[in-house]
Amino acid sequence: MRILGIDPGLRSLGWGVIEAAGSRMRHVANGQIRSDGTDLATRLLSLHSQLTEVVRSHAPDTAAVEQTFVNKDGAGTLKLGQARAIALLVPAQAGLSVGEYAPNRVKKTVVGVGHADKAQILHMVKLQLPGCDPAGPDAADALAIAICHAFFGRIGAPMLREVGT
Amino acid sequence: MRILGIDPGLRSLGWGVIEAAGSRMRHVANGQIRSDGTDLATRLLSLHSQLTEVVRSHAPDTAAVEQTFVNKDGAGTLKLGQARAIALLVPAQAGLSVGEYAPNRVKKTVVGVGHADKAQILHMVKLQLPGCDPAGPDAADALAIAICHAFFGRIGAPMLREVGT
Repeated sequence: MRILGIDPGLRSLGWGVIEAAGSRMRHVANGQIRSDGTDLATRLLSLHSQLTEVVRSHAPDTAAVEQTFVNKDGAGTLKLGQARAIALLVPAQAGLSVGEYAPNRVKKTVVGVGHADKAQILHMVKLQLPGCDPAGPDAADALAIAICHAFFGRIGAPMLREVGT
Repeated sequence: MRILGIDPGLRSLGWGVIEAAGSRMRHVANGQIRSDGTDLATRLLSLHSQLTEVVRSHAPDTAAVEQTFVNKDGAGTLKLGQARAIALLVPAQAGLSVGEYAPNRVKKTVVGVGHADKAQILHMVKLQLPGCDPAGPDAADALAIAICHAFFGRIGAPMLREVGT
């Protein structure tokens, strides 16, 4: 099963594709999409086109998107919500199911603790997907989301214990 | 010039199309789109498909979307941000320029004051677009946004004074 993980952001949207079969996982590709354009509509269109191209190129079977932190920064929440809509829309347009995972669930699955920092995530992503070299922290997060979906995306999540610390 | 106004919302997205030529305006169509589906990705896809159909049917030349209030309700802001992304993306995909107007600017243009309520907006929209019968308050707001874009969407906004109280 080929899984697309997406870490939504308006400035930089991370994506990562992995192949999961039973308990084995393999890195396929990853990247970070930057939105071009001065106005918001053009930037969202730019994100949409580039993410659509990722889905077209790598033909995933399913997708997963990180749930968004709602914080006191209303303007930031609004921007993130807008980027997140694109992250949810593009796989849905390709007919894929889209899983959603809270950030601490992703961290707990990949690192073993819910409060892991970016460096720990990068380390564990590289360990679980040998040979992969994430394009940046957002791409590493996206691969972590894909790994999380590989575990929880099916009923029973039998492999959960394997990723404990 | 044919103008599409959009009042974004996840549950109900209002839209209205008007024809503006010089100082004359004419109602073309309006409606409210409800998003179907249980998960967010499906609901965003539903909004996207229906709004794309509106653009296809009415072939506007330009579009305008209401700017979003950022308030203390983070979850509400996030939802609105997601609906707003669809409202901005669909016209951009059709190659249209997309104007953005703050709610109080829309009210001030259409009603004459920045703190008008829904009933006043409905009244003034009906007055300025004879024969139109908005499908609901979100559709009336969308028509008000289209009227606002008819005034501000060109350089100099020569007709501004005509809509004073």
